[in-house]
Amino acid sequence: MKYPNGIKKDTIFHNINYKNRGMNLENDLNITNEYYREIDKAYIYKKPTPIKIVNVDYISRKAATINEAYFMEPSTTDYNGIYKGKYIDFEAKETKNKTSFPLDNIHPHQIKHIRNIYNHNGIVFLIVRFTSLDKTYILLGKDFLSYIDNNSKKSIPISYFVSKGYEIKFKLQPRVDYLEIIDEIYGGII
Amino acid sequence: MKYPNGIKKDTIFHNINYKNRGMNLENDLNITNEYYREIDKAYIYKKPTPIKIVNVDYISRKAATINEAYFMEPSTTDYNGIYKGKYIDFEAKETKNKTSFPLDNIHPHQIKHIRNIYNHNGIVFLIVRFTSLDKTYILLGKDFLSYIDNNSKKSIPISYFVSKGYEIKFKLQPRVDYLEIIDEIYGGII
Repeated sequence: MKYPNGIKKDTIFHNINYKNRGMNLENDLNITNEYYREIDKAYIYKKPTPIKIVNVDYISRKAATINEAYFMEPSTTDYNGIYKGKYIDFEAKETKNKTSFPLDNIHPHQIKHIRNIYNHNGIVFLIVRFTSLDKTYILLGKDFLSYIDNNSKKSIPISYFVSKGYEIKFKLQPRVDYLEIIDEIYGGII
Repeated sequence: MKYPNGIKKDTIFHNINYKNRGMNLENDLNITNEYYREIDKAYIYKKPTPIKIVNVDYISRKAATINEAYFMEPSTTDYNGIYKGKYIDFEAKETKNKTSFPLDNIHPHQIKHIRNIYNHNGIVFLIVRFTSLDKTYILLGKDFLSYIDNNSKKSIPISYFVSKGYEIKFKLQPRVDYLEIIDEIYGGII
């Protein structure tokens, strides 16, 4: 069973796994982004899942029930917002794979989107969690695109994340402090 | 009949009105944003309508039908993206009112969002179309917030748009060239 949007049913009804601190990456990021908003550090949101609405029942003036709709493929990445006045944009993915990140996780129009944002000087990256290894990496857009452009492989080996990426260590607050890494990478530039 | 997200049924099944060139503001903006992407000027998208999914039928591995879902109130504005490396964010609204823009068109958390983006140096504004007058204005976030903070009225008079806002003249390509106005306002700063 697979949602077309890359949401897997088993991540929604996720069993508590203490090694992974009981949370999946999406939940961790939602909590992290909420924390960033609370401390007025950044305003970054997950975009709603795009849905094609086919039929709506109007029960009353105020209530409308959608009774036929379908998941659509997203044309952009899932997360975007503002950090220090700059545009920030990323896609977050989990894989159970221990040796590589399968590229079919990222749609072709999402790759195009990442390229556009990179060319326009946005801060753009992937956050990839290897759930079996309990490791989470940031891979900058430029390094992701460089891999895509120079390899015909259908996956990115974990060694590429280790050498080109940046590991995000789990913290209690915020859980996935990716902006700390962004600060390190960009230094005084932003 | 009103969708909770501010989408009116009559704008979806919109009659062709040659005075308004047959398009509503949302359609005009979609075409405009598509044009900006085609000429590689800016990457600005309308966010999907947030929907609360209650029940999904799994017909096959590939197809999933949502058969119970509800519209949710958006917590941010509808449009955001990147322009010249900067974060850009806006809300677009139409009103049939000829004398003022009713503030119940903008939810309290959207006002909060506009304030946050303004405080963090994003380019943030409203695009308001007075459909009966066939006039479309940009009102910058700072002027919108200034009005909200200094008035207890439930609407913004059109005179405020005339004095503080910037009229977007209709063009053939792109239809609603709001970035032209943004360039004028910000000049060489961005």
